[in-house]
Amino acid sequence: MTTQRIGFIGLGIMGRGMVKNLVEKGFFVTLWNRTRSSAIEFASELTGAHPVAVAESPQALAMQTDIVFCCVKDPAAVEEVVFGPNGVLSGARSGFRYVECSTVTPELVQRIAKAFEAIGAGAMEAPVTGSKLGAQSGSLVFITGGPTALHEELLPVLSAMGKKFIHCGPSGHAAMIKLVGNSTLSFMLEGLAEGLVVAQKFGVDLSKVLEVVQSSGYASPFFAWKGGNMLSGDFDTHFAVDLLVKDQTLMLAEAARQSASMPALAAIREVFQSARGQGLGDKDISSVIEVLRAAAGIKTPQPND
Amino acid sequence: MTTQRIGFIGLGIMGRGMVKNLVEKGFFVTLWNRTRSSAIEFASELTGAHPVAVAESPQALAMQTDIVFCCVKDPAAVEEVVFGPNGVLSGARSGFRYVECSTVTPELVQRIAKAFEAIGAGAMEAPVTGSKLGAQSGSLVFITGGPTALHEELLPVLSAMGKKFIHCGPSGHAAMIKLVGNSTLSFMLEGLAEGLVVAQKFGVDLSKVLEVVQSSGYASPFFAWKGGNMLSGDFDTHFAVDLLVKDQTLMLAEAARQSASMPALAAIREVFQSARGQGLGDKDISSVIEVLRAAAGIKTPQPND
Amino acid sequence: MTTQRIGFIGLGIMGRGMVKNLVEKGFFVTLWNRTRSSAIEFASELTGAHPVAVAESPQALAMQTDIVFCCVKDPAAVEEVVFGPNGVLSGARSGFRYVECSTVTPELVQRIAKAFEAIGAGAMEAPVTGSKLGAQSGSLVFITGGPTALHEELLPVLSAMGKKFIHCGPSGHAAMIKLVGNSTLSFMLEGLAEGLVVAQKFGVDLSKVLEVVQSSGYASPFFAWKGGNMLSGDFDTHFAVDLLVKDQTLMLAEAARQSASMPALAAIREVFQSARGQGLGDKDISSVIEVLRAAAGIKTPQPND
Amino acid sequence: MTTQRIGFIGLGIMGRGMVKNLVEKGFFVTLWNRTRSSAIEFASELTGAHPVAVAESPQALAMQTDIVFCCVKDPAAVEEVVFGPNGVLSGARSGFRYVECSTVTPELVQRIAKAFEAIGAGAMEAPVTGSKLGAQSGSLVFITGGPTALHEELLPVLSAMGKKFIHCGPSGHAAMIKLVGNSTLSFMLEGLAEGLVVAQKFGVDLSKVLEVVQSSGYASPFFAWKGGNMLSGDFDTHFAVDLLVKDQTLMLAEAARQSASMPALAAIREVFQSARGQGLGDKDISSVIEVLRAAAGIKTPQPND
Repeated sequence: MTTQRIGFIGLGIMGRGMVKNLVEKGFFVTLWNRTRSSAIEFASELTGAHPVAVAESPQALAMQTDIVFCCVKDPAAVEEVVFGPNGVLSGARSGFRYVECSTVTPELVQRIAKAFEAIGAGAMEAPVTGSKLGAQSGSLVFITGGPTALHEELLPVLSAMGKKFIHCGPSGHAAMIKLVGNSTLSFMLEGLAEGLVVAQKFGVDLSKVLEVVQSSGYASPFFAWKGGNMLSGDFDTHFAVDLLVKDQTLMLAEAARQSASMPALAAIREVFQSARGQGLGDKDISSVIEVLRAAAGIKTPQPND
Repeated sequence: MTTQRIGFIGLGIMGRGMVKNLVEKGFFVTLWNRTRSSAIEFASELTGAHPVAVAESPQALAMQTDIVFCCVKDPAAVEEVVFGPNGVLSGARSGFRYVECSTVTPELVQRIAKAFEAIGAGAMEAPVTGSKLGAQSGSLVFITGGPTALHEELLPVLSAMGKKFIHCGPSGHAAMIKLVGNSTLSFMLEGLAEGLVVAQKFGVDLSKVLEVVQSSGYASPFFAWKGGNMLSGDFDTHFAVDLLVKDQTLMLAEAARQSASMPALAAIREVFQSARGQGLGDKDISSVIEVLRAAAGIKTPQPND
Repeated sequence: MTTQRIGFIGLGIMGRGMVKNLVEKGFFVTLWNRTRSSAIEFASELTGAHPVAVAESPQALAMQTDIVFCCVKDPAAVEEVVFGPNGVLSGARSGFRYVECSTVTPELVQRIAKAFEAIGAGAMEAPVTGSKLGAQSGSLVFITGGPTALHEELLPVLSAMGKKFIHCGPSGHAAMIKLVGNSTLSFMLEGLAEGLVVAQKFGVDLSKVLEVVQSSGYASPFFAWKGGNMLSGDFDTHFAVDLLVKDQTLMLAEAARQSASMPALAAIREVFQSARGQGLGDKDISSVIEVLRAAAGIKTPQPND
Repeated sequence: MTTQRIGFIGLGIMGRGMVKNLVEKGFFVTLWNRTRSSAIEFASELTGAHPVAVAESPQALAMQTDIVFCCVKDPAAVEEVVFGPNGVLSGARSGFRYVECSTVTPELVQRIAKAFEAIGAGAMEAPVTGSKLGAQSGSLVFITGGPTALHEELLPVLSAMGKKFIHCGPSGHAAMIKLVGNSTLSFMLEGLAEGLVVAQKFGVDLSKVLEVVQSSGYASPFFAWKGGNMLSGDFDTHFAVDLLVKDQTLMLAEAARQSASMPALAAIREVFQSARGQGLGDKDISSVIEVLRAAAGIKTPQPND
């Protein structure tokens, strides 16, 4: 165990699991959250070797710690946390480390890296895959971008929260790959949902659809998990529609920046957009099937159907 | 080993592997193929306990065998093989069995089943998943639709060609599920391809994209396989673009029949349609990435890039 | 006025208007309709110089007349009317003329032309634009395909129903152009609807949207007409959703046959498909906006809003 | 003629035509342009009653004039011109007027209006339709948003550049309607292009397609104009692909903000995106047909085809 002091910004679904693991594995952790009261309440619930403090601002957090992790919801939130008045950058110093775990644009990640390097500090991007369960159990996969030396330096801390660490290249490359990943899973969700709705209208036993998918070369644990939700109508949020739409939007913007087209992702985003229009923004991403069911004039099958 | 006489119609990529396994496992097999010469040539290459004959017509094939399997390319071909002049139906009798392995519409499958039942024979649908390799190694997954008794009766023969047999329900249900499956894998291909093209333009090491995907909850053997093709530019055909477009078209038609919409599959089909327009119709489905690369003004990365 | 005897098949929205004009302008007209009773009732309501008879079958109709016009709902209906048992073809003779006004595929039109030519008769395609109002007032635009001589020969009869006659080329070319036209108006409808829904949610005075559109270089009488319906919620059927979806489907099939892609038409068809899923199949095509309103969680504005 | 001093920012295709008309009709005009040299050169070419000056900065321009018009390419450019260091706002005073003619987001327009109102000045949005030709001939249509009194106050100046002035409502409403308009014309372009490509592959005389469209209820001057470009391959820029993609992107973002979906516009934008990927970004919007031609493996028809 090191004596490094860790700061953590953002207490969403993912952040809470990550903090819990850092604390339980003996790190000195200080929190900052936009809603201060929830940070204080959450800190009081944590049980580790050391008490968990709450800082007054991102700037104060940076001044009180050696490494700050950030896991917030979108690029605008990151902009303010890093570059805003009382932002992390204003509290950083030579040797300080900033780790960006939010899913944001490659361009923002690169701008952050340059800003910290300019003052002799260092920033690495480290978005994660693994959902709520991975965050809670400390088995996330970290996808890093930045200098190789920084990746290695930070491994001991990342190891408290994850089980696998893939160094993707220079700054921005992990953000790019993360966006591709969330785009890919959007396709899988939408594809399964579109197919299930037609099969449901046809009258097929939907569990057979999942059985066939999972017996095929294109099987994936994701289909078992989200397909189960689609069959049962259990849309308890592990990954919210609003957040995935945000990622789809960032991916399309990056594609536009590269003058590449993503015709099907564009179609998919509009379906998820409809989910937001129909009040499902804070539900799990598997709830997108409800949009397609409504469009086809059917409902979630009930236990007694 | 039974003494059942097996007929087989269709010597495409899948059919050849299936026949080879039937012959090697000791069945008496007779073939029929639209191009007679290729059936004769293929029959001469097979090495089993019994010589392989070639029938003059589907009707003759039915008259010389107890069970006829059919694995041809599209509904029109099936229509002719079954209902055409000198078709299987005209050569069938009470107790005869017909097994439809082609990917066709639920409606056609149901019409075939009724026609054979009307003469005291029986028809079962049994489309497969598993691609060329599964056909060759006898490890296909058969998805069956029809009476349970028929499914059980035919298991000993199916077992020569497959490793798993999922009875999906009455006639037509397997066709429906097969179409959903091929729609789902279309989403996965397109999703990976769209993402890889943007990542390539950005300058990311594409092998890292695959590594991240395969370390995530949405990992799938399919991504490793087809993603590898997309990176290397090896589009040797396991599943041809023309055939997948055919399946996408059938799925959209079935969705239309159910008044359900499949917005993203519709978008995907148009990209695959462009692959046909650009001369990739007989290439592997992974070659769809070339359409997106061309649209974005880039090429397949070369070994020395 | 000639003494030609005219047969007419199909008494839908368009057919009734066309027949009314033929009768009022003094032609001898005989009808055939799948539902015989509605043909008899309609015939009794017509007031022209000559009484209107009803034939027993398409074959009988052909035998009793010199020229048969057909205006039915889809290619399957045309197939049966022409090639079916007791079809027009079986009642035709040398010198007989068949005019196909239905919107069908180029391939079917070409097949019909060949069949009539083979017996020394002649067939021309002549789909129309102009909607219900044009049919009733005799101001349709006829788009013809076939030999130029046939186009000229039939002009006197067409003139009873239309005001403009565009000869597009050989058989099939008019069908192709008609499909392009109905695809184009699908784009205009969907485009206006998608924009109006966002504007409505924003809170804009929707009549201002129409005013701006109609003051621009992209103004069109179609926008005034269908836009008015979208604002008022008056979806009285001039052109039914089911029929336009049929045309969109034929267009996509023709594009597929040509290995060309129509990415946005594919997207549009799925929205119209949803209209069918939501029970709007027999409503006017302008009702597609209701699908987009529902997806966005809003309703048609009410007079007192 | 008034003695009002007019400032003008932005000398793109539209701006040049607008300035030319202001000068010719006797206004005192001062220019500012990011590239100062082109403003000086353009000023020297203008021939009106008064010499045309060039200001050092937007701030200086505001200080030297009574009304500043702005017609630049995107929201980022507007942000800098208005709110940046040495921006118009910093040079404005009570009674000053700012008129935003660029196509931007409703939100930005509203923010600008509030900022000028806060200092006792006034801002109105007045995007235009009419393309390059309308700008040159002074026959633009101005779509305004803001207080009715401001609309009336500015009419005498707008009248030098336009022929029609539609007051759409409060600030932001004109921007919203302008985006709907440019979305609508995107649909018309894409629809015509998709149809023409299939017709071309089929072998139809494309001039017949335009003749039929223009004889139909959905005729529009826009189809004659842009359709002509698509047939001839003359893509001389009146409205650049890059600019229309920008507007499509703003419209999709506004739709997202309203949780409304625009499935077909999303599909269309990706096709236009491909045009950018293929080097057509600065060509006329009618060149989008080249993307579809390339996807279908054909070329622009040549005069001798």
